[in-house]
Amino acid sequence: MNTTMSIAAAVEADPTVPIIRITRDFAATPAQLFRAHTDPELFVRWVGPDGTTTTLDRWDARTGGSWRYVAALNGVEFGFHGCFHEVRPDRIVQTFTWEGDPDGVALETLTFEDLGDGRTRLHAQSLCDSFEARDAWLRSGMEVGVDQGYAKLDALLAAGDIAGTSAGAET
Amino acid sequence: MNTTMSIAAAVEADPTVPIIRITRDFAATPAQLFRAHTDPELFVRWVGPDGTTTTLDRWDARTGGSWRYVAALNGVEFGFHGCFHEVRPDRIVQTFTWEGDPDGVALETLTFEDLGDGRTRLHAQSLCDSFEARDAWLRSGMEVGVDQGYAKLDALLAAGDIAGTSAGAET
Repeated sequence: MNTTMSIAAAVEADPTVPIIRITRDFAATPAQLFRAHTDPELFVRWVGPDGTTTTLDRWDARTGGSWRYVAALNGVEFGFHGCFHEVRPDRIVQTFTWEGDPDGVALETLTFEDLGDGRTRLHAQSLCDSFEARDAWLRSGMEVGVDQGYAKLDALLAAGDIAGTSAGAET
Repeated sequence: MNTTMSIAAAVEADPTVPIIRITRDFAATPAQLFRAHTDPELFVRWVGPDGTTTTLDRWDARTGGSWRYVAALNGVEFGFHGCFHEVRPDRIVQTFTWEGDPDGVALETLTFEDLGDGRTRLHAQSLCDSFEARDAWLRSGMEVGVDQGYAKLDALLAAGDIAGTSAGAET
Protein backbone atom coordinates (compact mmCIF):
# COMPACT_ATOMS: atom_id res chain seq x y z
CA MET A 1 0.00 0.00 0.00
CA ASN A 2 1.13 3.46 -0.85
CA THR A 3 0.73 6.04 1.88
CA THR A 4 1.38 9.70 1.33
CA MET A 5 1.66 12.65 3.66
CA SER A 6 -0.21 15.06 1.43
CA ILE A 7 -3.98 15.43 1.41
CA ALA A 8 -5.81 16.68 -1.64
CA ALA A 9 -8.22 19.54 -0.98
CA ALA A 10 -11.80 18.98 -2.10
CA VAL A 11 -12.49 21.47 -4.91
CA GLU A 12 -16.17 21.69 -5.80
CA ALA A 13 -17.96 23.69 -8.50
CA ASP A 14 -21.40 24.69 -7.25
CA PRO A 15 -24.07 23.58 -9.76
CA THR A 16 -26.37 26.60 -9.36
CA VAL A 17 -24.20 29.64 -8.56
CA PRO A 18 -20.73 30.61 -9.92
CA ILE A 19 -18.88 29.54 -6.80
CA ILE A 20 -15.83 27.36 -6.19
CA ARG A 21 -15.74 25.74 -2.76
CA ILE A 22 -12.53 24.31 -1.33
CA THR A 23 -12.54 22.20 1.83
CA ARG A 24 -9.35 21.04 3.55
CA ASP A 25 -8.62 19.68 7.04
CA PHE A 26 -5.50 20.70 8.94
CA ALA A 27 -3.76 19.51 12.10
CA ALA A 28 -4.18 22.99 13.52
CA THR A 29 -6.41 25.09 15.71
CA PRO A 30 -8.64 27.77 14.17
CA ALA A 31 -6.26 30.36 15.68
CA GLN A 32 -3.32 28.79 13.83
CA LEU A 33 -5.15 28.83 10.50
CA PHE A 34 -6.18 32.42 11.14
CA ARG A 35 -2.54 33.36 11.74
CA ALA A 36 -1.41 31.48 8.64
CA HIS A 37 -3.79 33.59 6.53
CA THR A 38 -3.15 36.97 8.17
CA ASP A 39 0.46 37.08 9.42
CA PRO A 40 2.47 38.42 6.46
CA GLU A 41 5.66 36.51 7.31
CA LEU A 42 3.77 33.21 7.55
CA PHE A 43 1.51 33.76 4.54
CA VAL A 44 4.34 34.17 2.04
CA ARG A 45 5.92 30.91 3.24
CA TRP A 46 3.07 28.69 2.10
CA VAL A 47 0.82 30.37 -0.49
CA GLY A 48 1.05 29.17 -4.10
CA PRO A 49 2.60 26.25 -5.94
CA ASP A 50 6.03 24.82 -5.14
CA GLY A 51 8.83 27.09 -6.26
CA THR A 52 6.81 30.29 -5.87
CA THR A 53 8.47 33.33 -4.35
CA THR A 54 5.80 35.63 -2.96
CA THR A 55 6.57 39.30 -2.27
CA LEU A 56 4.02 41.41 -0.43
CA ASP A 57 3.50 44.89 -1.78
CA ARG A 58 0.65 45.85 0.62
CA TRP A 59 -0.63 43.76 3.52
CA ASP A 60 -3.06 45.15 6.08
CA ALA A 61 -5.03 42.10 7.20
CA ARG A 62 -7.70 43.95 9.13
CA THR A 63 -11.36 44.72 8.40
CA GLY A 64 -11.20 47.54 5.83
CA GLY A 65 -7.55 46.92 4.97
CA SER A 66 -6.10 45.90 1.63
CA TRP A 67 -3.41 43.68 0.14
CA ARG A 68 -1.28 43.14 -2.95
CA TYR A 69 1.39 40.57 -3.68
CA VAL A 70 3.51 39.41 -6.56
CA ALA A 71 4.15 35.71 -7.01
CA ALA A 72 7.23 34.77 -9.06
CA LEU A 73 7.38 31.28 -10.52
CA ASN A 74 9.84 30.07 -13.15
CA GLY A 75 10.79 33.65 -13.97
CA VAL A 76 7.22 34.82 -14.54
CA GLU A 77 5.54 37.28 -12.16
CA PHE A 78 1.85 37.22 -11.32
CA GLY A 79 0.28 40.14 -9.43
CA PHE A 80 -2.80 39.78 -7.22
CA HIS A 81 -4.65 42.34 -5.12
CA GLY A 82 -7.81 42.96 -3.15
CA CYS A 83 -9.33 44.42 -0.02
CA PHE A 84 -10.27 42.83 3.28
CA HIS A 85 -14.00 43.25 3.83
CA GLU A 86 -13.88 41.48 7.20
CA VAL A 87 -11.11 39.89 9.23
CA ARG A 88 -12.20 38.10 12.39
CA PRO A 89 -10.90 34.95 14.08
CA ASP A 90 -13.41 32.56 12.51
CA ARG A 91 -13.94 34.27 9.15
CA ILE A 92 -12.08 36.30 6.53
CA VAL A 93 -13.93 37.94 3.61
CA GLN A 94 -11.84 39.57 0.91
CA THR A 95 -11.85 40.51 -2.75
CA PHE A 96 -9.41 38.90 -5.17
CA THR A 97 -8.12 40.02 -8.58
CA TRP A 98 -5.46 38.36 -10.69
CA GLU A 99 -3.92 41.30 -12.50
CA GLY A 100 -3.69 39.34 -15.75
CA ASP A 101 -7.47 39.85 -15.90
CA PRO A 102 -7.66 43.25 -14.20
CA ASP A 103 -11.45 43.67 -14.31
CA GLY A 104 -12.13 40.17 -12.96
CA VAL A 105 -12.99 40.19 -9.27
CA ALA A 106 -13.91 37.30 -6.98
CA LEU A 107 -15.33 37.58 -3.48
CA GLU A 108 -13.60 35.07 -1.20
CA THR A 109 -14.88 33.83 2.15
CA LEU A 110 -12.70 31.71 4.42
CA THR A 111 -14.09 30.09 7.55
CA PHE A 112 -12.27 27.99 10.13
CA GLU A 113 -14.39 25.17 11.56
CA ASP A 114 -13.06 23.74 14.80
CA LEU A 115 -13.25 19.92 14.58
CA GLY A 116 -11.83 19.45 18.09
CA ASP A 117 -8.68 17.51 19.01
CA GLY A 118 -6.51 20.19 17.41
CA ARG A 119 -7.99 19.79 13.95
CA THR A 120 -9.68 22.48 11.91
CA ARG A 121 -11.57 22.38 8.62
CA LEU A 122 -10.90 25.26 6.26
CA HIS A 123 -13.81 26.26 4.04
CA ALA A 124 -12.80 28.61 1.21
CA GLN A 125 -15.51 29.95 -1.11
CA SER A 126 -14.78 32.00 -4.24
CA LEU A 127 -17.75 33.77 -5.79
CA CYS A 128 -17.38 34.95 -9.41
CA ASP A 129 -19.83 37.06 -11.39
CA SER A 130 -20.28 34.53 -14.20
CA PHE A 131 -19.98 30.79 -14.77
CA GLU A 132 -17.49 31.55 -17.56
CA ALA A 133 -15.16 33.33 -15.13
CA ARG A 134 -15.60 30.60 -12.51
CA ASP A 135 -14.93 27.79 -14.99
CA ALA A 136 -11.84 29.57 -16.37
CA TRP A 137 -10.39 29.39 -12.84
CA LEU A 138 -11.20 25.70 -12.62
CA ARG A 139 -9.51 25.06 -15.98
CA SER A 140 -6.41 27.02 -14.96
CA GLY A 141 -4.92 24.19 -12.97
CA MET A 142 -5.56 26.01 -9.70
CA GLU A 143 -5.82 22.73 -7.76
CA VAL A 144 -2.07 22.19 -8.15
CA GLY A 145 -1.28 25.50 -6.49
CA VAL A 146 -3.92 24.92 -3.83
CA ASP A 147 -2.67 21.45 -2.92
CA GLN A 148 1.02 22.37 -3.00
CA GLY A 149 0.37 25.51 -0.95
CA TYR A 150 -1.61 23.63 1.69
CA ALA A 151 1.11 20.93 1.86
CA LYS A 152 3.58 23.73 2.66
CA LEU A 153 1.20 24.97 5.35
CA ASP A 154 1.02 21.41 6.78
CA ALA A 155 4.83 21.43 6.98
CA LEU A 156 4.91 24.78 8.79
CA LEU A 157 2.39 23.44 11.30
CA ALA A 158 4.33 20.18 11.77
CA ALA A 159 7.54 22.15 12.35
CA GLY A 160 5.88 24.18 15.10
CA ASP A 161 6.37 27.41 13.18
CA ILE A 162 2.82 28.65 13.76
CA ALA A 163 2.01 29.48 17.36
CA GLY A 164 -1.35 28.18 18.54
CA THR A 165 -2.52 31.36 20.13
CA SER A 166 -1.69 35.00 19.67
CA ALA A 167 -3.01 38.23 21.06
CA GLY A 168 -5.72 39.64 18.82
CA ALA A 169 -6.48 36.38 17.06
CA GLU A 170 -8.90 35.11 19.68
CA THR A 171 -12.63 35.80 19.89
CA MET B 1 -50.76 63.29 -20.70
CA ASN B 2 -48.99 63.03 -17.43
CA THR B 3 -45.32 63.96 -17.47
CA THR B 4 -43.10 63.54 -14.49
CA MET B 5 -39.59 64.68 -13.71
CA SER B 6 -38.50 61.44 -12.08
CA ILE B 7 -37.20 58.46 -14.01
CA ALA B 8 -37.51 54.95 -12.63
CA ALA B 9 -34.27 52.97 -12.63
CA ALA B 10 -34.38 49.64 -14.44
CA VAL B 11 -33.90 46.92 -11.80
CA GLU B 12 -33.23 43.50 -13.32
CA ALA B 13 -32.78 40.11 -11.65
CA ASP B 14 -30.36 38.03 -13.71
CA PRO B 15 -31.93 34.66 -14.58
CA THR B 16 -28.76 32.56 -14.28
CA VAL B 17 -26.56 34.16 -11.60
CA PRO B 18 -27.52 35.80 -8.28
CA ILE B 19 -27.05 39.33 -9.55
CA ILE B 20 -29.20 42.46 -9.45
CA ARG B 21 -28.51 44.93 -12.25
CA ILE B 22 -29.63 48.54 -12.03
CA THR B 23 -29.45 50.86 -15.05
CA ARG B 24 -30.19 54.59 -14.83
CA ASP B 25 -29.43 57.52 -17.14
CA PHE B 26 -28.39 60.89 -15.76
CA ALA B 27 -27.94 64.37 -17.21
CA ALA B 28 -24.32 64.26 -16.10
CA THR B 29 -20.85 63.49 -17.31
CA PRO B 30 -19.07 60.34 -16.12
CA ALA B 31 -16.83 62.61 -14.00
CA GLN B 32 -19.90 64.05 -12.26
CA LEU B 33 -21.30 60.59 -11.47
CA PHE B 34 -17.89 59.52 -10.23
CA ARG B 35 -17.79 62.51 -7.88
CA ALA B 36 -21.35 61.85 -6.69
CA HIS B 37 -20.28 58.33 -5.63
CA THR B 38 -16.90 59.20 -4.09
CA ASP B 39 -17.05 62.72 -2.63
CA PRO B 40 -18.29 62.21 0.94
CA GLU B 41 -20.12 65.54 1.17
CA LEU B 42 -22.01 64.85 -2.05
CA PHE B 43 -22.71 61.17 -1.39
CA VAL B 44 -24.61 61.77 1.87
CA ARG B 45 -26.85 64.32 0.15
CA TRP B 46 -28.44 61.85 -2.23
CA VAL B 47 -28.04 58.22 -1.09
CA GLY B 48 -31.09 56.42 0.26
CA PRO B 49 -34.83 57.04 0.39
CA ASP B 50 -36.40 60.44 1.07
CA GLY B 51 -36.05 61.48 4.70
CA THR B 52 -32.80 59.57 5.25
CA THR B 53 -30.03 61.22 7.23
CA THR B 54 -26.72 59.57 6.32
CA THR B 55 -23.72 59.89 8.62
CA LEU B 56 -20.35 58.65 7.43
CA ASP B 57 -18.29 56.77 9.98
CA ARG B 58 -15.42 55.87 7.59
CA TRP B 59 -15.02 57.04 4.01
CA ASP B 60 -11.81 56.45 2.07
CA ALA B 61 -13.00 56.19 -1.55
CA ARG B 62 -9.73 54.96 -3.03
CA THR B 63 -8.59 51.55 -4.25
CA GLY B 64 -7.93 49.59 -1.05
CA GLY B 65 -9.89 51.99 1.15
CA SER B 66 -13.00 51.26 3.19
CA TRP B 67 -16.27 52.85 4.19
CA ARG B 68 -19.05 52.71 6.78
CA TYR B 69 -22.16 54.83 7.16
CA VAL B 70 -25.29 54.91 9.26
CA ALA B 71 -28.58 55.83 7.62
CA ALA B 72 -31.30 57.12 9.94
CA LEU B 73 -34.88 57.00 8.71
CA ASN B 74 -37.99 57.52 10.83
CA GLY B 75 -35.98 57.08 14.01
CA VAL B 76 -34.43 53.77 12.96
CA GLU B 77 -30.69 53.47 12.18
CA PHE B 78 -29.27 51.14 9.54
CA GLY B 79 -25.51 50.55 9.39
CA PHE B 80 -23.68 49.58 6.19
CA HIS B 81 -20.00 48.96 5.52
CA GLY B 82 -17.55 47.58 3.02
CA CYS B 83 -14.20 48.04 1.34
CA PHE B 84 -13.27 49.63 -1.98
CA HIS B 85 -11.65 47.00 -4.20
CA GLU B 86 -11.08 49.49 -7.02
CA VAL B 87 -11.89 53.14 -7.51
CA ARG B 88 -11.17 54.56 -10.93
CA PRO B 89 -12.96 57.19 -13.02
CA ASP B 90 -15.05 54.76 -15.06
CA ARG B 91 -15.54 51.97 -12.50
CA ILE B 92 -15.97 51.43 -8.77
CA VAL B 93 -15.89 47.93 -7.26
CA GLN B 94 -16.74 47.59 -3.58
CA THR B 95 -18.12 45.18 -1.03
CA PHE B 96 -21.42 45.89 0.73
CA THR B 97 -22.87 44.60 3.99
CA TRP B 98 -26.07 45.68 5.68
CA GLU B 99 -25.26 45.22 9.34
CA GLY B 100 -28.72 43.77 10.07
CA ASP B 101 -27.39 40.68 8.26
CA PRO B 102 -23.74 40.93 9.30
CA ASP B 103 -22.47 37.85 7.43
CA GLY B 104 -24.21 38.81 4.18
CA VAL B 105 -21.82 40.40 1.68
CA ALA B 106 -22.48 41.62 -1.85
CA LEU B 107 -19.88 42.59 -4.43
CA GLU B 108 -20.95 45.78 -6.18
CA THR B 109 -19.64 47.06 -9.50
CA LEU B 110 -20.56 50.53 -10.77
CA THR B 111 -19.63 51.67 -14.26
CA PHE B 112 -20.25 55.03 -15.90
CA GLU B 113 -21.04 54.79 -19.61
CA ASP B 114 -20.64 58.08 -21.48
CA LEU B 115 -23.67 58.50 -23.79
CA GLY B 116 -22.40 61.82 -25.16
CA ASP B 117 -24.21 65.18 -25.03
CA GLY B 118 -23.63 65.37 -21.28
CA ARG B 119 -25.53 62.20 -20.50
CA THR B 120 -24.19 59.14 -18.72
CA ARG B 121 -25.65 55.70 -18.08
CA LEU B 122 -24.96 54.25 -14.65
CA HIS B 123 -24.69 50.45 -14.51
CA ALA B 124 -24.79 49.08 -10.97
CA GLN B 125 -24.34 45.33 -10.46
CA SER B 126 -24.76 43.60 -7.09
CA LEU B 127 -23.49 40.03 -6.88
CA CYS B 128 -24.78 37.88 -3.98
CA ASP B 129 -23.63 34.39 -3.02
CA SER B 130 -27.09 32.81 -3.30
CA PHE B 131 -30.37 33.40 -5.09
CA GLU B 132 -32.08 33.48 -1.68
CA ALA B 133 -29.92 36.43 -0.58
CA ARG B 134 -30.40 38.19 -3.91
CA ASP B 135 -34.18 37.72 -3.88
CA ALA B 136 -34.42 38.93 -0.27
CA TRP B 137 -32.92 42.23 -1.45
CA LEU B 138 -35.43 42.43 -4.30
CA ARG B 139 -38.31 41.81 -1.89
CA SER B 140 -37.04 44.44 0.57
CA GLY B 141 -38.49 47.36 -1.39
CA MET B 142 -35.02 48.50 -2.43
CA GLU B 143 -36.37 50.11 -5.63
CA VAL B 144 -38.01 52.86 -3.58
CA GLY B 145 -34.70 53.86 -2.01
CA VAL B 146 -32.91 53.54 -5.33
CA ASP B 147 -35.39 55.72 -7.21
CA GLN B 148 -35.71 58.35 -4.48
CA GLY B 149 -31.94 58.50 -4.07
CA TYR B 150 -31.34 58.93 -7.79
CA ALA B 151 -34.06 61.63 -7.94
CA LYS B 152 -32.10 63.53 -5.25
CA LEU B 153 -28.95 63.07 -7.34
CA ASP B 154 -30.84 64.47 -10.38
CA ALA B 155 -31.72 67.52 -8.28
CA LEU B 156 -28.10 68.07 -7.19
CA LEU B 157 -27.02 67.90 -10.82
CA ALA B 158 -29.78 70.27 -11.94
CA ALA B 159 -28.79 72.74 -9.21
CA GLY B 160 -25.20 72.75 -10.44
CA ASP B 161 -23.94 71.37 -7.14
CA ILE B 162 -21.68 68.76 -8.76
CA ALA B 163 -18.74 70.16 -10.69
CA GLY B 164 -18.18 68.53 -14.05
CA THR B 165 -14.50 67.97 -13.68
CA SER B 166 -12.17 67.60 -10.74
CA ALA B 167 -8.51 66.84 -10.31
CA GLY B 168 -7.95 63.14 -9.94
CA ALA B 169 -11.31 62.10 -11.34
CA GLU B 170 -10.17 62.04 -14.97
CA THR B 171 -8.58 59.17 -16.81
